[in-house]
Amino acid sequence: MQPGRRHSPAESVALFGYSLTPMILRMLKTRANIKDVASRAGVHPSTVSRVLNPATRSMVSESLAREIVRIADELGYRRNALASGLRTRRTFTVGVIIPDLTNPVFPPIVRGVEHTLDGEGYIAILADSGSKRRSEKALIENMTARQVDGLILAAANRKDPLVDQVIEQGIPLVLVNRTVDKHNVTAVINDDELGIDLAVGHLVGLGHRQIAYIGGPQRTSTGYARYRAFLKTAKKAGIKLDRDLIINAREFTETAGQAAFHELIKTGKHFTAVLSANDLLALGCYDALEELGLRCPEDISVTGFNDMPYVDRFAPPLTTLHIPHDELGVQAATLLLERIENPDTPTKQLRLEPRLIVRGSTAVPSA
Amino acid sequence: MQPGRRHSPAESVALFGYSLTPMILRMLKTRANIKDVASRAGVHPSTVSRVLNPATRSMVSESLAREIVRIADELGYRRNALASGLRTRRTFTVGVIIPDLTNPVFPPIVRGVEHTLDGEGYIAILADSGSKRRSEKALIENMTARQVDGLILAAANRKDPLVDQVIEQGIPLVLVNRTVDKHNVTAVINDDELGIDLAVGHLVGLGHRQIAYIGGPQRTSTGYARYRAFLKTAKKAGIKLDRDLIINAREFTETAGQAAFHELIKTGKHFTAVLSANDLLALGCYDALEELGLRCPEDISVTGFNDMPYVDRFAPPLTTLHIPHDELGVQAATLLLERIENPDTPTKQLRLEPRLIVRGSTAVPSA
Repeated sequence: MQPGRRHSPAESVALFGYSLTPMILRMLKTRANIKDVASRAGVHPSTVSRVLNPATRSMVSESLAREIVRIADELGYRRNALASGLRTRRTFTVGVIIPDLTNPVFPPIVRGVEHTLDGEGYIAILADSGSKRRSEKALIENMTARQVDGLILAAANRKDPLVDQVIEQGIPLVLVNRTVDKHNVTAVINDDELGIDLAVGHLVGLGHRQIAYIGGPQRTSTGYARYRAFLKTAKKAGIKLDRDLIINAREFTETAGQAAFHELIKTGKHFTAVLSANDLLALGCYDALEELGLRCPEDISVTGFNDMPYVDRFAPPLTTLHIPHDELGVQAATLLLERIENPDTPTKQLRLEPRLIVRGSTAVPSA
Repeated sequence: MQPGRRHSPAESVALFGYSLTPMILRMLKTRANIKDVASRAGVHPSTVSRVLNPATRSMVSESLAREIVRIADELGYRRNALASGLRTRRTFTVGVIIPDLTNPVFPPIVRGVEHTLDGEGYIAILADSGSKRRSEKALIENMTARQVDGLILAAANRKDPLVDQVIEQGIPLVLVNRTVDKHNVTAVINDDELGIDLAVGHLVGLGHRQIAYIGGPQRTSTGYARYRAFLKTAKKAGIKLDRDLIINAREFTETAGQAAFHELIKTGKHFTAVLSANDLLALGCYDALEELGLRCPEDISVTGFNDMPYVDRFAPPLTTLHIPHDELGVQAATLLLERIENPDTPTKQLRLEPRLIVRGSTAVPSA
């Protein structure tokens, strides 16, 4: 066969499953090719490839790497990450799916993920599964069609067929913030039980005995674990639980918290504090308190969970559990890179400990 | 040539610039191929391709599209977006670069971008150029290596060689929030002059005459336009400007705002209000006021710009200019899709009008 001879479309389809048009040939054969760079540098093309891929550059001596980059620049050779993905089965792309980008707790987690990936030559494709218009399933399919090397999901449910599917497909996966009930996937989460224990201890220490609880959706591990922890630690602390004063909201949102607080008031039962399963629910309590002409903390103390950015500035500043946002992201990305390198890495669960931050939304109960 | 015959590596390199190994052949020739689906459906493969690509599905009748999707599912055929990108030169991927994901003004803009792209079958690769470790240049190179169909930049400088470079490379580009001095690129920005005019009008209306200004970096269009607008509208309002009370900070951050406020105090000059060029700078003023034992608005009124989420909850709630975050994102994505479809679309600048939101951080000056 003569170099440069084109296949007929039929031949191409037989070989590759699709037609190799002249356009593709032009695309694949960019200005200078890797062999031109290699021959000028007096090295094997694979060395050039290693140098031009941020993830493998460290395998080549620094001075040689610099020289190769110089020659590649001079010849106008540019790595085509797409063709590269087809060659190496690596796209150096990780999909990150979060449930709600506008929940301020997620941007710092995403930032931790991004910076860790970036240090290894990977890039994140970020998507928000929050809106009703886009299902998480479609997003995951879109990402796997783009051959992501791995996925980080912050939006998992406790029973999650999508997680099962990703695992079955053999795509490296790490869950962050939320996990599944089955212990078959690596996850970086918070120690929810410790967090709730600290919050209950704080309220009891201030003298609260009638403590209401606004929880999150029980389909999520955070919603479920925090609810279970509340039942357990309240009992341990010797406070009598009133089932009417325990409401699990359907969403971790401000609106849901607001509605739940109004429900608590409607029971007509006495309570002096509300322990909320996240900061947005606590903000909803603030809204309801204002609507009802009640003051926080004078009439009702309120606690949150997450210490999302800026809650220290709220009126009143929110007493909450600080979770290490950046570290959640860093650890999730690190564990994912480990799985990408070595898919046989045993799954593990990393639990980071929250810290209680006492601010102005809690005080001794009014007489 | 026999169907199925492999090229020698030398032939492949001559043709494609790299060696076609058996692995690539396996990758490209997945289980069922597009021809299998087409023949079962009795249509041309290009019809199957159109149906399986969300961006072109509407070109095929709904009932036929449904039938083709059913057959593809049955045969286990899945579009390989990567190979698809090589075929069509479209990856249905858009790069979005923002200067700081943890600045709460950006998530709602990104959400607007994402949801608009999603509706058209595109996905966003999001990256944060904020940290010193990653330069915007490297991010753009990474994204263009991944053959993004277009870029949305929220981090442009007024003079920006990177923007010039992207334009030269012919990559569809839309700037959002910030623009460049040259009018050679499509941008969706805020009407900064109107915003500052509204803020000055509000403070003057309250009786303020000694108004200090904390601006942003002059390398950004927002920093520069807001500064110029302040000089102009203050003059128009008949208030005497004191150059010592005008400070342009190097970054749009809380820390920079805090430092600038301390500088204002150090001048020993009298002022009753600070107009800040964004909300983070205003927050920095809050910090400095607290450190100095001063009260807002009793001692000093403060205004911001952006109305980022939650500033209505701050102590005190911030008087600021509301910008339509979601709409900025929606418009940027819409204009980018337009450019991708038709690269010859004339460049345009879309200016959205901010609205003044008066809250608790401004009051009549103390006697």
